[in-house]
Amino acid sequence: MHFTKMQGAGNDFVVLDATRTPITPSAEQIRRLADRHFGIGADQVLLVEPADDASADFRYRIFNQDGGEVEHCGNGARCFARYVVDQGLTQKRQIRVQVQKGLITLTLQDNGEVTVDMGAPELRPAEIPFDGTGLDGVTRGADLLWPLAVNGRTVLMSVVSMGNPHAVQVVDDVAAFPVATDGPVIESHPRFPARVNAGFMEVVDRHTIRLRVHERGAGETLACGTGACAAAVAGIRRGLLDSPVAVHTHGGVLTIGWEGLQDAAAPVTMTGPATTVFRGEITL
Amino acid sequence: MHFTKMQGAGNDFVVLDATRTPITPSAEQIRRLADRHFGIGADQVLLVEPADDASADFRYRIFNQDGGEVEHCGNGARCFARYVVDQGLTQKRQIRVQVQKGLITLTLQDNGEVTVDMGAPELRPAEIPFDGTGLDGVTRGADLLWPLAVNGRTVLMSVVSMGNPHAVQVVDDVAAFPVATDGPVIESHPRFPARVNAGFMEVVDRHTIRLRVHERGAGETLACGTGACAAAVAGIRRGLLDSPVAVHTHGGVLTIGWEGLQDAAAPVTMTGPATTVFRGEITL
Repeated sequence: MHFTKMQGAGNDFVVLDATRTPITPSAEQIRRLADRHFGIGADQVLLVEPADDASADFRYRIFNQDGGEVEHCGNGARCFARYVVDQGLTQKRQIRVQVQKGLITLTLQDNGEVTVDMGAPELRPAEIPFDGTGLDGVTRGADLLWPLAVNGRTVLMSVVSMGNPHAVQVVDDVAAFPVATDGPVIESHPRFPARVNAGFMEVVDRHTIRLRVHERGAGETLACGTGACAAAVAGIRRGLLDSPVAVHTHGGVLTIGWEGLQDAAAPVTMTGPATTVFRGEITL
Repeated sequence: MHFTKMQGAGNDFVVLDATRTPITPSAEQIRRLADRHFGIGADQVLLVEPADDASADFRYRIFNQDGGEVEHCGNGARCFARYVVDQGLTQKRQIRVQVQKGLITLTLQDNGEVTVDMGAPELRPAEIPFDGTGLDGVTRGADLLWPLAVNGRTVLMSVVSMGNPHAVQVVDDVAAFPVATDGPVIESHPRFPARVNAGFMEVVDRHTIRLRVHERGAGETLACGTGACAAAVAGIRRGLLDSPVAVHTHGGVLTIGWEGLQDAAAPVTMTGPATTVFRGEITL
């Protein structure tokens, strides 16, 4: 089986082309492909399929290391767009892709980066989900911050969902911040019934932040696409940042655009790199 | 650049063929090749070169993830042998290979496994190095065990070097044993001036053990070749085991042979699997 290994801001993917011949990998085969010692190794496996909807160019399926199929991932979507262009599967620069819950649009930029429409942020507590019952929120700009106890301190956090829940705080020195000890406590904070991703951002200037994210069930990762979106949205709403925001992560720089203060329905856009690392052939 | 990804008992390698064209990867390139997100990903990178010694068939160089060149690794040597046979670079079943500190012999078995001559164990404390000054050793069979304090308990350990130092203890239930907490304490025990690898073995029968190893500077690994040798030697010397010993690790089974009770100069042999995972091409 031919495959391509790609990465976007350090988030890495095995990409399989099922546009000509259908591929229906079993969960066991996905686990094998994603295994870093006994297989190719990747955070997720991407399947490129023909669209079954006339308004779309392709269908895109994505599987976690455990073999389960999941919703789309911003870093994976960028790799998907680069893949279909690099392989000559399309000549378009704006690509419409069917994902599990609808259609997304991916745009190739002149510098080779890809812009992904990440949808509008969800800010209603019950929809995040976040339980603020009996808590007094603190207003900062257009945002309402929530005081949450973390390892004996009270921390003011923005809560926002980008399809998955995020709790974002501002810190002075993100490189030195104890993400490994605070992250798991925030993840399991009882105010978040579905648990939460914990973001820690340092504001460099009005268009630049440094970000680390503790992801639910995964720990700190090199770069979390939805975490970058959530942090930029939180910073813009707090009045600390202006769109576009360059988000510096361990895996690279993601540029987030959001005009949500002007237009409540505005989507978040994420622009970033997507790179082919190597190509190969494996027997499953 | 063409490469082959291989694994032996879960220890994984990027193998590069430099028999036709010299390859002199920089430390930066080695780090890139070994990186699991931005490169191919491997514990080590192997270079297959022509021998410059008439008595050898090949020369074998091995590099750690940090780019530094190191001494040979038993799991890597097995992959090396399978590689040169699978690629048709030799028809021999017994292959003599130049490594950093001399020559090793690798033997292809009929079942596809490879036997590596790992040399004789070093049992003299000063050469391991181990400092037993003022300690009373406890005799068990042909072995002398050393009582060492570990997290408030006194543990009887065999000390043996297979080119690198090992402290081996027998435990009742290795799956449940707190390797993550005891391993680092043993690694840094002041009696081992060069630190030490910590082995934990459960004796199943006289030819079978289960083994976990905390490796110096690396933590617990899937399978440690020299650790399997050290554990089998310790078990045979204690009178608990007979050669050959099947060593069950998280990464697979390694079979260790040693006739050292009969012949003080007898080498340890390690037999185990070596598998091609995939082939590919990468641009550096």
